[in-house]
This record gives sequence, C-alpha cells and structure tokens, in this order.
Amino acid sequence: MAEIYTEAPEIVASSWLNTAGPLALRDLRGKVVLLHAFQMLCPGCVLQGTPQAAAAAECFAGEPFQVIGLHTVFEHHAVMNLLALQVFVREFRLEFPIAVDQRAEDSPVPVTMQALGLQGTPSLVLIDKNGLLRFSHFGRLSDMQLGGMVGQLLAE
Amino acid sequence: MAEIYTEAPEIVASSWLNTAGPLALRDLRGKVVLLHAFQMLCPGCVLQGTPQAAAAAECFAGEPFQVIGLHTVFEHHAVMNLLALQVFVREFRLEFPIAVDQRAEDSPVPVTMQALGLQGTPSLVLIDKNGLLRFSHFGRLSDMQLGGMVGQLLAE
Amino acid sequence: MAEIYTEAPEIVASSWLNTAGPLALRDLRGKVVLLHAFQMLCPGCVLQGTPQAAAAAECFAGEPFQVIGLHTVFEHHAVMNLLALQVFVREFRLEFPIAVDQRAEDSPVPVTMQALGLQGTPSLVLIDKNGLLRFSHFGRLSDMQLGGMVGQLLAE
Amino acid sequence: MAEIYTEAPEIVASSWLNTAGPLALRDLRGKVVLLHAFQMLCPGCVLQGTPQAAAAAECFAGEPFQVIGLHTVFEHHAVMNLLALQVFVREFRLEFPIAVDQRAEDSPVPVTMQALGLQGTPSLVLIDKNGLLRFSHFGRLSDMQLGGMVGQLLAE
Repeated sequence: MAEIYTEAPEIVASSWLNTAGPLALRDLRGKVVLLHAFQMLCPGCVLQGTPQAAAAAECFAGEPFQVIGLHTVFEHHAVMNLLALQVFVREFRLEFPIAVDQRAEDSPVPVTMQALGLQGTPSLVLIDKNGLLRFSHFGRLSDMQLGGMVGQLLAE
Repeated sequence: MAEIYTEAPEIVASSWLNTAGPLALRDLRGKVVLLHAFQMLCPGCVLQGTPQAAAAAECFAGEPFQVIGLHTVFEHHAVMNLLALQVFVREFRLEFPIAVDQRAEDSPVPVTMQALGLQGTPSLVLIDKNGLLRFSHFGRLSDMQLGGMVGQLLAE
Repeated sequence: MAEIYTEAPEIVASSWLNTAGPLALRDLRGKVVLLHAFQMLCPGCVLQGTPQAAAAAECFAGEPFQVIGLHTVFEHHAVMNLLALQVFVREFRLEFPIAVDQRAEDSPVPVTMQALGLQGTPSLVLIDKNGLLRFSHFGRLSDMQLGGMVGQLLAE
Repeated sequence: MAEIYTEAPEIVASSWLNTAGPLALRDLRGKVVLLHAFQMLCPGCVLQGTPQAAAAAECFAGEPFQVIGLHTVFEHHAVMNLLALQVFVREFRLEFPIAVDQRAEDSPVPVTMQALGLQGTPSLVLIDKNGLLRFSHFGRLSDMQLGGMVGQLLAE
C-alpha cells in the first residue's frame, strides 16, 4: 500500500513582499516548503500561526527549507489590502517572503486558496522536496508536531 | 507631603464602537476608569496590551470599573481607519467601548493622546473615582501590577 | 448588611525557613499577609501557586505586605520532610519566609491547615491589616485577580 | 566527509519505574530513543524538560519512538531517593519509563550520567534506530527544535 501524493498547485499571486521577485514552487525543488496561509486580521493567525511560521523559518534556517506566507483574504477585502499588509508586515517584523493570493473573479476565496482546498485561516501546508503536497491543516498545530513533520520531510 | 493629581482631560473622539453613544469621563465619576491607548497594527497592543485590557474588564466586571479603548493612530493613518478598526474589533471579539481619537489639524498625534501626553502605544492610563489621573504607563505591565493598582483605586 | 470576618488563627509551625526566627501573625498587624499553603511535590503548587506567591512578594515589595509560605504536608510525609523542603527552597530560589505546618497527633492534616479549614494545596489565604481572614481559595487564581485583592486590602 | 557516531552506552539502573521490567537500549534497535536526564528537584527539569519529554512521548506516540527518563542524581542524594521519586512520578502523572541511574562508588555523579558525559540536568540525549548517539544537550531546547530532530531520526 502506498499513499499517492499530488503536486502542489503553483502559487498565483498579485504581489510579493519580502522578496526581490516572485517565487515559484517549481524553482524550490530540493527544499521543503512551508506555506502559511493567513489573513492579517485573523486572531488565530496573528497570535499563533504567523509567529509559529516565523519561528520555523528561524529554527530550520540552515536547512533546505523555505517558509512562504500566503495572504489568502477571503473576507473584508477592502480592509486587508496591499497597503495594510505592508504595514502589518513591517510592524510585526516578518521577514519571510509573502505572496498576496490572487483575487478570484467569481468568489471571495482567492485563487491559490481554492486550488489548495483550504478551509480557512490559519492553514499550514507542507510541500516536500519533490513539490508534492504532503500535509495540509486548518487551525492550530503544536510546535513539536510541526517540527516533527518538517524534520521528517527534510530527512527524505 | 501629598502628591497633587490633575483631572484627566476629556476624551475627544471622532467615533465610538461597542457603545450606544459617546462616553464622557465626567459621567463616570464613582468609577475607576482604565484607558487603553492602542493602535490596531501595533504588535505590543495586539499581543499583550489589548488582551490585558479585555481581561481587566472581565476580572473587575462586578466592580465600579470601566475599560475604555482609545484608538490613538499616530502613524499609517490610511490603513488604520475606521472600517479597518471595525473589522479588527469584530474579529478579535473586543467588547469594551472604544473611542477613535480625534485627528489633530497639525500633528500626526491625535488630540486625546496629546492631551494625555502619551509617548506611544500601548499606553495604559488609570483614572480614579474623582476623575483624577493617577497612573500613566507606556509599554508592558504585569497582570499582577495592573490588578494591584486597580484594586487600590477601587478601594478608595 | 455587613460581612463579619474572623481573626486568622495563628501559624503553628515546627520549623521556619528563610527567616531569622518564627513569625507570628499578631506581629504583622498593619501589613496585608498572603499565606501560600503548598506541598513541595504538588504540581499545581510548583508550576503555578508557588511562582505566583514569589511574584506577589516582588510585585508588592515596597508595600506593607508579607508573603508567608506554609508547607502543609497532608500526604507522603516521609518524603516531604524538612531536609527535602530545604533542598526544594534552595533549588527553586524561594526567598519568602516559609513555615512548616505542625503535624497533628491524630490526623494526616497538619495543625494550621486544619485551623484554616483548607481543602488542599495550593491554597491562598489573605489576611488584612487587622489580622482578619478576608479570602481563602483552593486552586488557581489569575495574577490579575490576586493583584486586585491585594491592592484592595493594601488601600484599606 | 562523514561524522562518526558512537554507540550509546547502556543504561545502568538501580531501579525502574513505569515499566514491567528493565529496558535495555540494545533491545530498542529500530526505535528512536529520547533519554531525558533529570533530577526531581531541579527547576529546569520540573518546569521545562520533564513536561517536554512527556509531550514528546505523546506527540510521537504512533511512531517507533521511546522516551526514557533517567534520574541522574548528582547532589542531595539523601532527599532525591527512590521513595521520593515514586511520589514525584505519581503526583506529576509521568507515564514514560524511568530508570534510576546507578550511584557510582567514587563520585557523586552516577554511572550512566558519567558514561554519557552529561554536564548537568536537564540533559536530552537522542539515540538513533541503530543505537548510535546522535545528539546530547544540556539545558533548554525549543519544542520545534526537538520535534525537528526527532522527525529527522524517525525518517532515516
């Protein structure tokens, strides 16, 4: 028996912060990628998920590991705009690259969030060195659980 | 020897949230008032000061005690506007009354913040039952310190 | 209507730590006294109650306030003996005075614990400046609640 | 270039708790072993290391993973004896197997602690599926770091 994993859909972003240019998952083969899907005014993100993503970036700094924030606004679009996100990122001193998920034509849920099938924010997605989707979780994870999963993917 | 306290300046607000109408300090004689000056995108507020103000409102719920939030925006005015604050308050489930400090004509620092001489956010101001300014602090306070001061003012 | 408070029973101790000689409540009139009843191998004490008692001693250091630990062993007497308590106090760097509650002749519950009617450990007892019992609580208290009560008693 | 790892020395214990009989590292090939060296009256153990070891046992419960406590008493031997440890383990509801490190003839430092070259408590030792010593650390580790290392060893 073997579990079959699918390739992670590419990030579709209208803007990028904290990076010289857009990142593409296809260019990150060989690295474990942690996608942190968040909204800047979601309490579970601000109080737990986002600091945890930043801690993971620091904890695995020397490893083939990339944290990417994904600002998946699916409500209050007028307020959680690019300018507001820029202020949030600066004030909270976030240093990892952050993609602004592309607004969809016909849905409040943005494009990458739809493609990943995420249920809300914060969501955490782990992508292995081959670009396969290995884990997707809506809500809180303990630091130890997250560390354990990242460690296992790094060792593959 | 006796310390001389001055009367707290009145709150000058452009809007109020979580209250049927504007509050005035002069109508709160007989109550201890905790003013929590914050900005919705200030990390020290979101992570510490604002939850502490909410905890104080709950802890001293049966006492003659009033928590008032004061949104003292002195930077990034375009982003921390009324609509954004409304979303923030709803998402973070804040229930205490919140005044939006009146923008000043000639300064980024709003009117009440100037009158209180606050140095930044979060700041905490305690006003006694006679409307006198008794304590003003910029930055972090332990829950025990804050509880101790509120308890002393309640007992007067 | 008025609540009637009773005088706190005197501490009956077989030993004292962290003090030149025994303390007596009757000599502490004019001070608010926090009695922290604990057992050195009670998790709720070690992880929460005892650190909170130490924090209270520090928070109200300049006030007429006295923290007294009361080692109320009511189980595992052979293990939680004086020598073990001395090691515990040194290792955990406790600095407030600690009384070893006197073993009772006919009960596993020691003398002062019986006199105070405590239900278990940790228990927290507050005694006002007149030596009256004002509050007794078994279990956890928030720092803000405790601070508020101490503040009120200090202001009387 | 390759790092050369040595085999972990066998645990030499005078008693075992929470297990039907003694455990031997040589019988645990195929499992990652976390050795948590502690003393029951060491604050860094009680407040951080021991709860973290218990959390690791729970976090990796379904994996080939074994947590073993090692009571490495090197001071205050009269107080941190077997009876006291039994009370500590019951009161703190520790469920993982715990070995009492064998007292040495000529040193306060017990036998296994010496063989492992540990500098103090808490210390954390990770042993891989082949019985090799892979990591040894005196002091605090974040949950994420620990999770990451366990995850990497599990994936080998």
